[in-house]
Amino acid sequence: MTPQAATPAYRRLGVEERRNQLLDAALALFAHRAPEEVTLDDVAEQAGVSRPLVYRYFPGGKQQLYEAALRSAADELRLCFDEPREGPLLTRLSRALDRYLAFVDGHDTGFSALLRGGSVAETSRTTAIVDGVRRAAADHIMRHLDVADPGPRLRMTVRMWITAVEAASLIWLDEGKQPPVDELRDWLVEQFLAVLSVTARRDPQTATLVGTLAADA
Amino acid sequence: MTPQAATPAYRRLGVEERRNQLLDAALALFAHRAPEEVTLDDVAEQAGVSRPLVYRYFPGGKQQLYEAALRSAADELRLCFDEPREGPLLTRLSRALDRYLAFVDGHDTGFSALLRGGSVAETSRTTAIVDGVRRAAADHIMRHLDVADPGPRLRMTVRMWITAVEAASLIWLDEGKQPPVDELRDWLVEQFLAVLSVTARRDPQTATLVGTLAADA
Repeated sequence: MTPQAATPAYRRLGVEERRNQLLDAALALFAHRAPEEVTLDDVAEQAGVSRPLVYRYFPGGKQQLYEAALRSAADELRLCFDEPREGPLLTRLSRALDRYLAFVDGHDTGFSALLRGGSVAETSRTTAIVDGVRRAAADHIMRHLDVADPGPRLRMTVRMWITAVEAASLIWLDEGKQPPVDELRDWLVEQFLAVLSVTARRDPQTATLVGTLAADA
Repeated sequence: MTPQAATPAYRRLGVEERRNQLLDAALALFAHRAPEEVTLDDVAEQAGVSRPLVYRYFPGGKQQLYEAALRSAADELRLCFDEPREGPLLTRLSRALDRYLAFVDGHDTGFSALLRGGSVAETSRTTAIVDGVRRAAADHIMRHLDVADPGPRLRMTVRMWITAVEAASLIWLDEGKQPPVDELRDWLVEQFLAVLSVTARRDPQTATLVGTLAADA
């Protein structure tokens, strides 16, 4: 029995506190199971409350709870990208990737189910939440790169790299979390520099940036 | 009026011929509109037949027709990857990319809608069809690279690049098909070599391969 399940069923909690408790319980379940495999009874049991109580907070049932849990996971993921704008750029990228990969590690099954698509819980709303995280990642990178007005070639390169990182995360989960996370992180950082260097051959803005990154390392 | 729409409504066609006619009509519509925006009436009109006839061939309605059209598009896409195993490897990759990008260009809206996810027409079956195409692309590349037993680092690199190509295609469509397709193709080929070169630093198998590619170019 988990400590959460041992919580007395109807201990008085404030509305916000109760909602968060239910969300935490849902997130813990959705992290390691596909949405198809989580029932509201599971969530109630995990939170140590009754099923009607879950419905009172989430009258839309599992789909509403799933979306709320996803939004809360997306907020958590955005926090991974928060990195002070000091020190070498590639070191900052390494640190953000460390936090991102720890998140992937901690939400393995749910992360896969969400990004693989085709889940019954997937809707245009869940897709929009995931796209919001991708955009946030791209915005963070642009801010760190300190490029005021990124051109289309630079933007495309950064967005392609973000997608490649997502793909790497899914393959990494499939492969039993191999290679070791530190190797994966360094590999992704080196790929970032490599694809920027390719773009630099045909884009002066990216060429200047790659010069800065090289001087900075 | 398109020549197809001018076909007399009940000209006698064989079952297979009629099915293909309906699929072609559906594919033409799904190529440039989101599945949400195509009705069975549109398909009947495009094919120059009655709505009941469409239902007779596709009793599952639009979803069944969409999946059949998708399977037919997936077959077409697989043909893009068919490339004789002769001449420099990167030249072969360029030619396959040319065909792939022509496909993306010719199926722009449908391609976006499908790969963006969150469409009402998306199910675990449509996801499986798309994944099948991705796997076919990876298999083709491995065969051309002539690596008998690709290790996890090489496989991961190739799969990441395929995902990055997909992302590039979607961004390219969003950006009004800029940069010009020839530049995009060369850029993607150079990225392929660049990410393999990064992997080569930590994977002897990929290092050997990159040596071959350099000698071959």
